[in-house]
Amino acid sequence: MTLPSSQRRIVLARRPAGVPHEDDFRAESTEVPQPGPGEVLVRTVDLSLDPYVRGTLTGRDLGHRPIAPGDLVPGRAIARVVDTGEWVVAETGWQEYAAVPAAALSPLSTPSGVPRTAVLSVLGTPGLTAYATVTRLLRPAVDGTVVVSSAVGAVGGTAGQLAALAGARTVAIVGGPEKCRIAVEHFGYTAAVDRHDPSWPRALAAACPNGVDGYLHMGSGAVLDGVMNLISPGGRVVLCGLPDNANEVGTPAVLPAGLLMRTRAVVHGFVVYDHEDLRPRFLREVGGLLAEGRLRLLEDVHEGLESAPAAFRRLMSGENLGKTIVRIAHG
Amino acid sequence: MTLPSSQRRIVLARRPAGVPHEDDFRAESTEVPQPGPGEVLVRTVDLSLDPYVRGTLTGRDLGHRPIAPGDLVPGRAIARVVDTGEWVVAETGWQEYAAVPAAALSPLSTPSGVPRTAVLSVLGTPGLTAYATVTRLLRPAVDGTVVVSSAVGAVGGTAGQLAALAGARTVAIVGGPEKCRIAVEHFGYTAAVDRHDPSWPRALAAACPNGVDGYLHMGSGAVLDGVMNLISPGGRVVLCGLPDNANEVGTPAVLPAGLLMRTRAVVHGFVVYDHEDLRPRFLREVGGLLAEGRLRLLEDVHEGLESAPAAFRRLMSGENLGKTIVRIAHG
Repeated sequence: MTLPSSQRRIVLARRPAGVPHEDDFRAESTEVPQPGPGEVLVRTVDLSLDPYVRGTLTGRDLGHRPIAPGDLVPGRAIARVVDTGEWVVAETGWQEYAAVPAAALSPLSTPSGVPRTAVLSVLGTPGLTAYATVTRLLRPAVDGTVVVSSAVGAVGGTAGQLAALAGARTVAIVGGPEKCRIAVEHFGYTAAVDRHDPSWPRALAAACPNGVDGYLHMGSGAVLDGVMNLISPGGRVVLCGLPDNANEVGTPAVLPAGLLMRTRAVVHGFVVYDHEDLRPRFLREVGGLLAEGRLRLLEDVHEGLESAPAAFRRLMSGENLGKTIVRIAHG
Repeated sequence: MTLPSSQRRIVLARRPAGVPHEDDFRAESTEVPQPGPGEVLVRTVDLSLDPYVRGTLTGRDLGHRPIAPGDLVPGRAIARVVDTGEWVVAETGWQEYAAVPAAALSPLSTPSGVPRTAVLSVLGTPGLTAYATVTRLLRPAVDGTVVVSSAVGAVGGTAGQLAALAGARTVAIVGGPEKCRIAVEHFGYTAAVDRHDPSWPRALAAACPNGVDGYLHMGSGAVLDGVMNLISPGGRVVLCGLPDNANEVGTPAVLPAGLLMRTRAVVHGFVVYDHEDLRPRFLREVGGLLAEGRLRLLEDVHEGLESAPAAFRRLMSGENLGKTIVRIAHG
């Protein structure tokens, strides 16, 4: 590869208020970074956009340090080592080239027939989130009913399929009729409910005639309230994502203690960083399912680094259709 | 025994608003009930007052049917069969004599050296509540910190001792310095915090330097908030009693979803009726501990049927010191 003299990168322009907006970010040209001792230069190919990034912008994420205006926006990507052409997964941030510690690179490896970008979604941390919440916390019973909100997103799409593979009836909560169609036709949910339709709680009740045995929550406070009203005695609830809290909009979601007592619900707070020990087993099992064609992917791909801010707004406002990826270079 | 021609009983005068008051009840004279087919006449000796009764007054208890003004107030008691003198435990209600189905009587049995009233507290449903919450849900670790609110009540006193026997550090939350003293000196809590003292959250933090690993909640919403702020990652919270909800006062208690996620807490709603299967094992184990003198009782005994309404107000406003019992007859 021949190196250009400068590169483009995207930095935080100002801390977002509410759902991040394009104007909260700024593209700028800088020199291509110089690798220091123990570092190698990589070229970013497929950049992953993930909700945790919202937390780093205001210092609320538990696994990543906060950034300040002027700082490079963090992000994980599929990249190629400039010197060797080797494909790797690396923490590049939102930029074309990154100097990264050689020790922090992981070689890119996907089962044959599986697209490389699966390592950012089904075979990455979103997939581990789905696997850990389903196998460790929701533990669906055959014929039990599992509800998933943000059901066609990077985590939800995989979680719904894993719950269905375990024998559960699965019900998707999504925004809009297009996502309802994708939930049922692409991901195989038993039923899907459109939360934009004001009568969605009635539709959810109809889709869950025996109540809700397991619920993976990644939605708004209103969605949480609506599902909790249908929870079965002893039902299991996993709080996995709180977009309103992440975006700092609306009233922080709460669970009524009386309802939890009356329903004998079990509520688990979930943070994926606690479940790294599960990664080898997850990669083996979920990699196998993907290679056998028993699990499906859905990607929301955007072209070019400069599309990252709009793609991120789309992700954080729930408009994405599947895993959000920004393609920065072609191979 | 010679039977009187009439008896006294206490009926609901009006549905309580908030904490029950003496005026919500009315004492009246009635004929001594006539046993129907399959029933026997019993004489109430030690009447148990329990928080679930508050729910029956407004139809909110899950295990007992609601009552209406004019109805006998429900309650369980130690009683004697009039014909045989046999000691039994029966659902008598708040009255001197009751005609009860013979099949619903259980013979009174306590380990030697243990007072008979233990069957209403440590060896009764409050004890089963403590045993099930500690062994099934809190599952204290050796040297872990378990916090109990209403810590010297019928459930809390036993729960704190069972957690300490399992090796935990135990911290009591109670109302007033007298109860703090009883918590530490009588029940053996490691520390006690007086929730009437405005600086109690600081005192609780000092008593839990490594955070709260397990919390048995039977207090107000303010107590729940204060403890949740100290919960350890993965801490276990059991919602066992909600006096504000039972009394229908204040704002219904809620748990912030963001806090649950951040702390990875596990919250269990608990209703004792789900844990009847545990009763034989509980009676064996806790009966053994009592007989060996390794568990202590505390009783708040009131003399005479007419003292029941005031004693119930005292119980429901948290003024009781231990298990509330109304002594209606002497043997």
